[in-house]
Amino acid sequence: MLHENRIEKLAALLREKGLDAIFAGPSTDLEYVADLKLFDDERVKGLLISSEGRVFALTPMLYGEEMRNALGSGAIYKIWADHEGFRTAFVEGAAEIGVTGGRIAINDGVRAVDLIEMEHALRAEYVNGAAALSPLRRVKDETELEYMRRASSIADLVMEDVSKFIRAGQSERDIQEFLVKAFDEHGGEALSFSPIVASGPGGSMPHYQRNDRILRDGDFVVIDMGCKYKGYCSDMTRTFCIGKASDEMRRVYGTVLEAQKAGEAAVRRGCTGQDVDRAARKIIADAGYGEYFLNRLGHGVGIAIHEEPYIIEGNDAPLEPGNVFSVEPGIYIPGKFGVRIENLVSVRADGSAEALNKFTRELITVK
Amino acid sequence: MLHENRIEKLAALLREKGLDAIFAGPSTDLEYVADLKLFDDERVKGLLISSEGRVFALTPMLYGEEMRNALGSGAIYKIWADHEGFRTAFVEGAAEIGVTGGRIAINDGVRAVDLIEMEHALRAEYVNGAAALSPLRRVKDETELEYMRRASSIADLVMEDVSKFIRAGQSERDIQEFLVKAFDEHGGEALSFSPIVASGPGGSMPHYQRNDRILRDGDFVVIDMGCKYKGYCSDMTRTFCIGKASDEMRRVYGTVLEAQKAGEAAVRRGCTGQDVDRAARKIIADAGYGEYFLNRLGHGVGIAIHEEPYIIEGNDAPLEPGNVFSVEPGIYIPGKFGVRIENLVSVRADGSAEALNKFTRELITVK
Repeated sequence: MLHENRIEKLAALLREKGLDAIFAGPSTDLEYVADLKLFDDERVKGLLISSEGRVFALTPMLYGEEMRNALGSGAIYKIWADHEGFRTAFVEGAAEIGVTGGRIAINDGVRAVDLIEMEHALRAEYVNGAAALSPLRRVKDETELEYMRRASSIADLVMEDVSKFIRAGQSERDIQEFLVKAFDEHGGEALSFSPIVASGPGGSMPHYQRNDRILRDGDFVVIDMGCKYKGYCSDMTRTFCIGKASDEMRRVYGTVLEAQKAGEAAVRRGCTGQDVDRAARKIIADAGYGEYFLNRLGHGVGIAIHEEPYIIEGNDAPLEPGNVFSVEPGIYIPGKFGVRIENLVSVRADGSAEALNKFTRELITVK
Repeated sequence: MLHENRIEKLAALLREKGLDAIFAGPSTDLEYVADLKLFDDERVKGLLISSEGRVFALTPMLYGEEMRNALGSGAIYKIWADHEGFRTAFVEGAAEIGVTGGRIAINDGVRAVDLIEMEHALRAEYVNGAAALSPLRRVKDETELEYMRRASSIADLVMEDVSKFIRAGQSERDIQEFLVKAFDEHGGEALSFSPIVASGPGGSMPHYQRNDRILRDGDFVVIDMGCKYKGYCSDMTRTFCIGKASDEMRRVYGTVLEAQKAGEAAVRRGCTGQDVDRAARKIIADAGYGEYFLNRLGHGVGIAIHEEPYIIEGNDAPLEPGNVFSVEPGIYIPGKFGVRIENLVSVRADGSAEALNKFTRELITVK
């Protein structure tokens, strides 16, 4: 269903930015404006939305019925068959809602190879619209915040369960399977992303993609996971220790924990993403681990797992009440281990941080 | 690991096409040339490969260790930190392998919004490289064919299992979960895609994405599924009947079956994708269901689930021994039901089709 009020707000934003239209392919933007989830194959599809709020649904024949069921009479449709390609349908549909050139934003659900074809079909200035909907999406209303609190409290329960389950001798994959089941049992609708379980030296890769290592005594195990509730994501990381931690491991864990708390504490009225990043980063740099903190401190979360506001050097826009983002410092020592601790926080009306995750951040040691 | 011989062949292809380089983001192309599987977040990453066969790995700091582990000393690296963005690293790395402009192909693993940033950073003619590696990939060698036969025989076993499991009263989701477990038990490494289980009226949507309907007496149930073996995909569809099929259902099923057989039979020395599509399409059109056959007859399969050659009107390139593709006619009647029957076939040295799937195509009726 098209959310008319969101389409109207988006159209106003386009006018404000001097844009004639935005083309949005399969993405969380389409979920936001139309509850539209599209199968992500190579057939070009999506919505072209004009600065007057008119909507054209570019529709491969294969998806005609789904698109009409989802959008109803609020959009105009141009259906293209596999052997025709999408170019003619794109140009004709655009013209029908009054878009024949000018400045067209492209969102992050479109492939570069398809943009190249669009440029050949319809002469216009195509601009980066990855963040075009952010002014609408980055401030959550009370309903959205409730969904996000619920998604985070499910993650808390799952983290507690896994803290009791995890043992030396299990494989990373065993832990992943446990997490998937636990999210289902606690009412998560879907995963935010495939859980990361990175043990021992794998922990130094923040987005470690393997799962075949066996947990051993003396390992740190980084668990990064989340689920969706009513379409909104949770995202949470804890690092557990199997057996006894070495002095270096304790020092690193203590540093990351202090940095995580400093990041949350830095959130206050008028502060920026950069301020929060710097507050946490300083703790890690002062402890001598600056070069091992590989990424920004955090990212916004909502229906997308990564969205605005980014908590990063260079972001000097003041944080606003209703923003929700992660605070996730880490220290990643190649070949040895990694530690990351991550909470989601929202910004309260008074500018301070409300942690959506309640599960302990202190080091948990298991057998 | 970089496959030097594939990089060399790719470089020769680039020279032949008058291209100076190709930039490939996370995609099956990267799996093909470098066994490289990258986490697909918004951080721009991938390989720029020059027409001289030099390789530059554009690397977000977060993935530095993984990228170096995967590629070793065969590539040059430019690492960029989150707060810097990728543009400077892209331009510097490109220059280091001798790419400072000219014609650069972009593959299908790059987002349009990132191409727009590349265009601002490095002035060049960017061209659609979605099919740039197809001349290498679309002819499978004997090892690749063995992997694909194995992936298809696993799919056959799973289809046989599900034919014995499926019953009225189950939900589509029950069937999906059964399939996931069965693929794992029979040795599938991963799924080719999340299985489609489309019952009753849902069957008229070829890529039906829901799974909440309960199977009822008188339903057709379309099951479209596949797994990977050594990285190569299977893809197979059968349509089962719950209880008694109506006369119309039998007529439609018989038409699709005849069309599927006609498609396979049309594969012979020198024929084209278009010839095969037409042979099957004629059967359906002659039976009066032409408007309900919504898609091309088939697509190539390999490490990607959709690749060249496409079995489609307009493809007049002769099929070659070693091509592997689907033959999957369907009739989709909105609001009523759908039928699809899909085998993978490979082209033998004599030009005829070898069906990789052996499971029966005849109508199976269950309780």
